[in-house]
Amino acid sequence: MKVAVLGGTGEFGGGLALRLADAGHEVVVGSRDEADAREVADEYADDTGGDVSGATNSGAVDDADVAVLAVPPEYAADTADDALSGFDGIAVTPVVGMSREDGDFVYTPPKEGSYAARIRDSLDDDVPLAGAFHNLAAGKLAATHVDIDGDVAVFGDDEAKDTASELVEDIGTRALDVGGFGVAPQVEALTPLLINVGTKNGIRDAGAKFV
Amino acid sequence: MKVAVLGGTGEFGGGLALRLADAGHEVVVGSRDEADAREVADEYADDTGGDVSGATNSGAVDDADVAVLAVPPEYAADTADDALSGFDGIAVTPVVGMSREDGDFVYTPPKEGSYAARIRDSLDDDVPLAGAFHNLAAGKLAATHVDIDGDVAVFGDDEAKDTASELVEDIGTRALDVGGFGVAPQVEALTPLLINVGTKNGIRDAGAKFV
Repeated sequence: MKVAVLGGTGEFGGGLALRLADAGHEVVVGSRDEADAREVADEYADDTGGDVSGATNSGAVDDADVAVLAVPPEYAADTADDALSGFDGIAVTPVVGMSREDGDFVYTPPKEGSYAARIRDSLDDDVPLAGAFHNLAAGKLAATHVDIDGDVAVFGDDEAKDTASELVEDIGTRALDVGGFGVAPQVEALTPLLINVGTKNGIRDAGAKFV
Repeated sequence: MKVAVLGGTGEFGGGLALRLADAGHEVVVGSRDEADAREVADEYADDTGGDVSGATNSGAVDDADVAVLAVPPEYAADTADDALSGFDGIAVTPVVGMSREDGDFVYTPPKEGSYAARIRDSLDDDVPLAGAFHNLAAGKLAATHVDIDGDVAVFGDDEAKDTASELVEDIGTRALDVGGFGVAPQVEALTPLLINVGTKNGIRDAGAKFV
C-alpha cells in the first residue's frame, strides 16, 4: 500500500515510517516543512532499502491509500481538516495527549472525549477513520532490526479498522480489535500508563501484551 | 497478614479471597449478609485448606491489617465510609465502574475523576489507600490451580502502595508501580479495555503484561 505518514519527521512518526517501509509499503513522509520531509525520507530509504519519499503533509496524501496522523495532539485536528480535505483514502489516528502531574504522566482528553473523536469531527465525513498504533513506543518502532514484542489495540466503526489492522500485522505486531469509537479514551489512556510503567520499573519503551 | 476482603462473596472478591488464602494469608470474607459470608468462607477454607472466616463488612475489618474493597462501584464510597470508619489498617481499592455502549465496555469515571478518588474522599483521612488488582479477571483469580500470567498496576501516594504490592506478589503476579492517585483513571480504564480485548478476540479472562 501507499502510506502517507503525516508528521513522519517526528520520533513516533519516523519509527512508524521505518517499520512500514521495512515491511515493503511505499511510504511518503509528510511534514509541514517539505525540505525536512525529503531529507528524512532519504535517510529512511537508506536505512530500510525501501521506497520512501518526502512531501508536505498535503502533498503526501496524494494518491495515498492510507494516511496516518502521526502528529502532535495540538495539530491533529487542523492537519485532519487541512491536509486531508478531499482525501479519498483511509485515515488512521495514533494520536494521544498527555500531561505530567506530580511526576506521573496522565491522559488529558480533549472536550470531544478523545483525540479520535476530535479528529473524526475535523475530517470529511466520507473519510473512513480507525485508531491504531497508540501503544507502541517510538524507540521500539525505530529499532527495525528487533521484532516488536507487543500487541496493538485497534478501534473503529468502519472499513478503516480492517486496513489499520492489516498495517499493524505487517509490522509484526498483533492487531486486537477492541471495539468502536466509544473505546477510544481507554486506548489513548493506555499510552501514559505504559510510559509510567516504563519509567518507574525500568522497562525500556514499555508496551502491552494481552494474555 | 490478616486481610479482610469486603464483598468477598462476589465473583471478583471471591477469587481474590481464594488466592490470598492459598498464599497463606488469614482471610476474612466480608459481606452485607453475615450468614452468606460465613457459608462462602467455609467453602473457601475447604478449597484452599487456608484460614478463612466470614463476617459482616464492618466485622471483617476488626484487627485486619488490610481491607480490600472488592465491592460494586455503586457501594464503594458507602462501604469505605461505614465499614472502614475508625479502621486502623491499610485499604486497597480494585474498584472499577463501566457501562456498555454500542456493544463495547467503556469506563465511566465518577465526578471525582476516578473511583479511587471517590473512595479516598469517603475514607477517614488517616487510612492509607492504594489501588491494585483492577486488571485481574475474576475467573483467572478463582482458578487457583493455574498460575496467573499477567501483571498488576499498583498506584498510591502513601505506605499502602508497598503493602498492596506485597499482596500482589504473594498471589504470584508482578506488581508494577504506575504512580500516584493522579493515574487512577488510566488504571481503572484498563479493565473495560481488557474485557473488550477478551470478548472480541477470544482471549478468556484477558489480562495485561507489560513488556
